[in-house]
Amino acid sequence: MIRKYSYGQVFKTESVPAALPAETGAMPYMAVDEKEMSLTRTMDPEDIVYGLGENVRGINKRGWIYESKCSDESKHLEDRRSLYAAHNFIVVSGKATFGLFIDYPGILTFDVGYTDLSVLKITASDWNLDVYVIEGDSVTDIVSQFRALIGRSYIAPLWAFGNGQSRWGYVTAEDVREVVRKHREGGIPLDMVYLDIDYMERFKDFTVNRERFPDFADFVRKLKEENIRLIPIIDAAVKEEKGYPVYDEGIEKGYFCTDKDGKPFVGAVWPGRSLFTDMLNKEARDWFGDKYRFLLDQGIEGFWNDMNEPSIFYAEDRLSEVLEEIAGMREGGQNLDLPAFSHFQDLVGSLSANAEDYKKFYHSVDGRRIRHDKVHNLYGYNMTRAAGEAFERLVPDKRILMFSRASCIGMHRYGGIWQGDNKSYWAHILLNLKMLPSLNMCGFLYTGADIGGFGSDTTEDLVMRWYALGIFTPLMRNHSEMGTRRQEVYRFRDLQGFKEIIGLRYKLLPYLYSEYMKAVLDNKMMFRPLAFDHPQDGRCATVEDQLYLGDELMIAPVYEQNARGRYVYLPERMKMLKYTREGVFEEKILEKGDHYVQVGLSDVVFFLREGHLIPLSGGGQCVADVDFDNLSILSFGEDASYEYYHDDGVSKDYDNPANRKTLRA
Amino acid sequence: MIRKYSYGQVFKTESVPAALPAETGAMPYMAVDEKEMSLTRTMDPEDIVYGLGENVRGINKRGWIYESKCSDESKHLEDRRSLYAAHNFIVVSGKATFGLFIDYPGILTFDVGYTDLSVLKITASDWNLDVYVIEGDSVTDIVSQFRALIGRSYIAPLWAFGNGQSRWGYVTAEDVREVVRKHREGGIPLDMVYLDIDYMERFKDFTVNRERFPDFADFVRKLKEENIRLIPIIDAAVKEEKGYPVYDEGIEKGYFCTDKDGKPFVGAVWPGRSLFTDMLNKEARDWFGDKYRFLLDQGIEGFWNDMNEPSIFYAEDRLSEVLEEIAGMREGGQNLDLPAFSHFQDLVGSLSANAEDYKKFYHSVDGRRIRHDKVHNLYGYNMTRAAGEAFERLVPDKRILMFSRASCIGMHRYGGIWQGDNKSYWAHILLNLKMLPSLNMCGFLYTGADIGGFGSDTTEDLVMRWYALGIFTPLMRNHSEMGTRRQEVYRFRDLQGFKEIIGLRYKLLPYLYSEYMKAVLDNKMMFRPLAFDHPQDGRCATVEDQLYLGDELMIAPVYEQNARGRYVYLPERMKMLKYTREGVFEEKILEKGDHYVQVGLSDVVFFLREGHLIPLSGGGQCVADVDFDNLSILSFGEDASYEYYHDDGVSKDYDNPANRKTLRA
Repeated sequence: MIRKYSYGQVFKTESVPAALPAETGAMPYMAVDEKEMSLTRTMDPEDIVYGLGENVRGINKRGWIYESKCSDESKHLEDRRSLYAAHNFIVVSGKATFGLFIDYPGILTFDVGYTDLSVLKITASDWNLDVYVIEGDSVTDIVSQFRALIGRSYIAPLWAFGNGQSRWGYVTAEDVREVVRKHREGGIPLDMVYLDIDYMERFKDFTVNRERFPDFADFVRKLKEENIRLIPIIDAAVKEEKGYPVYDEGIEKGYFCTDKDGKPFVGAVWPGRSLFTDMLNKEARDWFGDKYRFLLDQGIEGFWNDMNEPSIFYAEDRLSEVLEEIAGMREGGQNLDLPAFSHFQDLVGSLSANAEDYKKFYHSVDGRRIRHDKVHNLYGYNMTRAAGEAFERLVPDKRILMFSRASCIGMHRYGGIWQGDNKSYWAHILLNLKMLPSLNMCGFLYTGADIGGFGSDTTEDLVMRWYALGIFTPLMRNHSEMGTRRQEVYRFRDLQGFKEIIGLRYKLLPYLYSEYMKAVLDNKMMFRPLAFDHPQDGRCATVEDQLYLGDELMIAPVYEQNARGRYVYLPERMKMLKYTREGVFEEKILEKGDHYVQVGLSDVVFFLREGHLIPLSGGGQCVADVDFDNLSILSFGEDASYEYYHDDGVSKDYDNPANRKTLRA
Repeated sequence: MIRKYSYGQVFKTESVPAALPAETGAMPYMAVDEKEMSLTRTMDPEDIVYGLGENVRGINKRGWIYESKCSDESKHLEDRRSLYAAHNFIVVSGKATFGLFIDYPGILTFDVGYTDLSVLKITASDWNLDVYVIEGDSVTDIVSQFRALIGRSYIAPLWAFGNGQSRWGYVTAEDVREVVRKHREGGIPLDMVYLDIDYMERFKDFTVNRERFPDFADFVRKLKEENIRLIPIIDAAVKEEKGYPVYDEGIEKGYFCTDKDGKPFVGAVWPGRSLFTDMLNKEARDWFGDKYRFLLDQGIEGFWNDMNEPSIFYAEDRLSEVLEEIAGMREGGQNLDLPAFSHFQDLVGSLSANAEDYKKFYHSVDGRRIRHDKVHNLYGYNMTRAAGEAFERLVPDKRILMFSRASCIGMHRYGGIWQGDNKSYWAHILLNLKMLPSLNMCGFLYTGADIGGFGSDTTEDLVMRWYALGIFTPLMRNHSEMGTRRQEVYRFRDLQGFKEIIGLRYKLLPYLYSEYMKAVLDNKMMFRPLAFDHPQDGRCATVEDQLYLGDELMIAPVYEQNARGRYVYLPERMKMLKYTREGVFEEKILEKGDHYVQVGLSDVVFFLREGHLIPLSGGGQCVADVDFDNLSILSFGEDASYEYYHDDGVSKDYDNPANRKTLRA
């Protein structure tokens, strides 16, 4: 059961498509303090708090304070309070179990036992918000109700479940060709090559650098003949440059965010001085969305939206003030004492993503001007919505790949997300895993992290262990930052190891795609914490490094360097499957309980639940190679059966019953 | 057996006190490339590389590249290559097992399977170095030989094994009194309060702010009557200020490092413009050491040496250049494009600890001028040596507490180290544990990390779990950074929990002090990886979160938030001891193998080996309260006995056989 409580003048975020009537009584579970603008609850010592989507720390969010404030945050460390998203949905699981969604576009704080281990306190920046309280039979049931409330999640094309290779630094067509060639030569399956900001003309959206890509449409076509799709990036901000049609048109039509005087607000991002399309203005959104046509017309079928928190490197007036102040310091002589030096460093350090700058520009929504910070968390959502709505208009019968960096609940209907600019840290393999169920709760199904790590230098073993998790995530992409060590798998020694691990992805594709589609269509979670399936098993409550995948599998990757295995807790009897560098499965039945399992560096281990089976293809070098009809079976138990979803992977006849079949052992 | 190989003109680091003759033949184990200035070895897939002292990452250092370059590095993250120390000792353990010590004062790189998983490569900055190759019966034997080679480790006074409370921000005498009062009122044992930079006059070494501490000597005396010792910080750099005697004298005598023209080199640290005592010049070192007398004379018995990498916030000429360049940018207009803005940020970001600045100043050693970067890693070592040698002259019969941030092998004879400016990360509990054996290998026995974390905001559960490890480390100190959440234990809810955990430290003191002393005197490791004791047990090879403490105990702290227990691997049958918030031990015998053990938030769990016992005191509110003679026993097995070391804890009759007794069950 879902009840809505409404306070103040609520901005229509459209996170929830349906209009529920608001309750008049007191909110259950949470003490409301309108003056303090907070919701509070005393937690039981054993209560677990799930949710908050893309975030740092555990599956159980207890013991930290989180801020819903979309941030360009490349340091995914324990002391951060925000990443790129605002996913305001939690489930408190314990003596009382309930879900809570705060539909609110501004900055929101979740103190989940940080200040006081036993207190959950949610604080808003102003008192205009809708709160949805959800009750159900179980955590899973509450999540399903919530997912039904917020609407069907974005569905990616089937080919987008292939292996993708990316790097900030594939600058020319030849760079891309080399990546493709090396994969094909090495027998490493590949379906996508991503283009980062390098492909544009001076970082201008909806342009292609003609020197680097002389005939882009032809290049896209030729690659597609090899079953490779090019996936370009689109940045949120538009370069200020007279004669650049996107800029000229946006200015002419008044589609950019404005400052307090109504003049276009200028911040600097990759292209230098830039403007921000008013994504909250429907007309501007439609206009921006239509611009994707420039690339669609050249054969592009997928995009990633970036920098849409929005990221601001500096606001022009602030930079001017800072440079002025530094000049003053210089005139005052160079002996900066400690406070002066520290102030100097802070001045420079606070140029980027300065909270005050987000109060300097305005949106225009239905004729009203709204200061950006009040609706900050809707920006990335509406940029991706701009694209998603445009694709519906422009190519209504075809799925387009779309995922974003910034997001908010609501955006899940228009695209997936990647988990942002992580690093080549072992700890980030585990963080990748921990975010999966939290994101699924919030409607984000097409997701994954940058395999091998985006920032910092990687190592071969890190990349290999990461793939052993990444092959299970819908979005599977190796991506890295310019200046870091190269990490395409063909650059390492054990090509055979990588080939088999990535090859396994393609064998698992019929199952993985089927599970993804069912999770979307049936409002289920593709990845679940063990405790969701075993609420009575106290041991499951604290397992933070294993997940259920569908109803069939449990995954438990190795995420420690130099490890030769790991502990797993089995809440029930399962069959362990170890896929080795010889391309074969070793099987072993393990009883309920604790086990230490050996996992060689190039092994992939996962666990099959009793009474279940999964279908397996023969693999392939690209998704088009994979035969989704002639399947083999991995099963555990005599009477196992499986509901197999399969469709053409491109069109949108999702609900056709013919897409579902029952497979038996 | 130890063999020395000598190359080039070796600077006398005095890391090794004895003069070994150099071998003439080829070095075993490592391929020497004099041109490339490197030592290389192909590793077996199962080889483990131990050592490198204070560092990031695992007990097994394999899979990363480390740089011996003492750095003021507050981000102890996976992608760092250096922390504060240069600990150039490793042991390769595998088919061939050997130790390697590179006696070298400059910057040295250990590529331990980073570039290529199977290659160990050590590269020097110039080809003037001694290499010691050590062979032995076991890793433990190799370490013992190495420890004997580098000389007996520093010995701390017994009272320094008490609980210490610190924070950057105890500014006045009243702040200190409050800390003491709150501990005593709450029944939380306490022996030391640390003073960070706030106690000085404008950050000037060897001064006390008379407004904040009106009668310092009297204050020190009164605290000592309450069995509390004040431990002030000493910074490496000396403020430039005419009329400040330390500055005036240093200038007059020419004891500061000089620039290429022979003028004193000026860098900025806490006091603003500052000079660096030439710690490598014996006269200057003696002079600096004698300055500690200012505080010794006021009753101080312990110090911590900080900022001695040395840390440089900026060099005056570089700051001047940077300000100039920024002024030019301002004149050029404010539209910094991406490369220009990024250059601007780099300019500011590279002011601190700029490698080029370390090439701008010189030491004077035996009449020769030596550029600092050639001997960089000796600076902190010789600052602490300055103090240690002075204490021998000034108070020869009394132990003085001394530990440092920067260090190098050799310094272990003069002081301990703390593990530097960590953060309130759960990951840093584990990092604290992992560094212990590596530090013990390199001679650092009096060590520990900032409990609760120095930087970032902590949580109650983090502090509590961290204490459950910290009570076992010789240096036990809760320390935090100005501006972070307060973390004295009395600020949290569960005072009873903290009281029992810290109380347990005092019960364990007879054992812990005995183990520390024996480790120092017998060149043993107080903390060892499990694999050192069980080289044939393949499972032990990868255990990175449990340690042996002495021959009796195994520790295995919980380092994950919201965990209710953890896995342990027992290489042999042991007795699990769980000390609870009721102040009692629960006992359970566990068989060899894997176990999941429940550990409540306020529980301390450790394991006693069969055939062993440990002595236990009745505890106390301070070390002086603890009765080291009337002991109870925790034992496992009938014939258990224990060699108990005890002395007066202050004087230096370490080798008196009367200090050792055998205890029996």
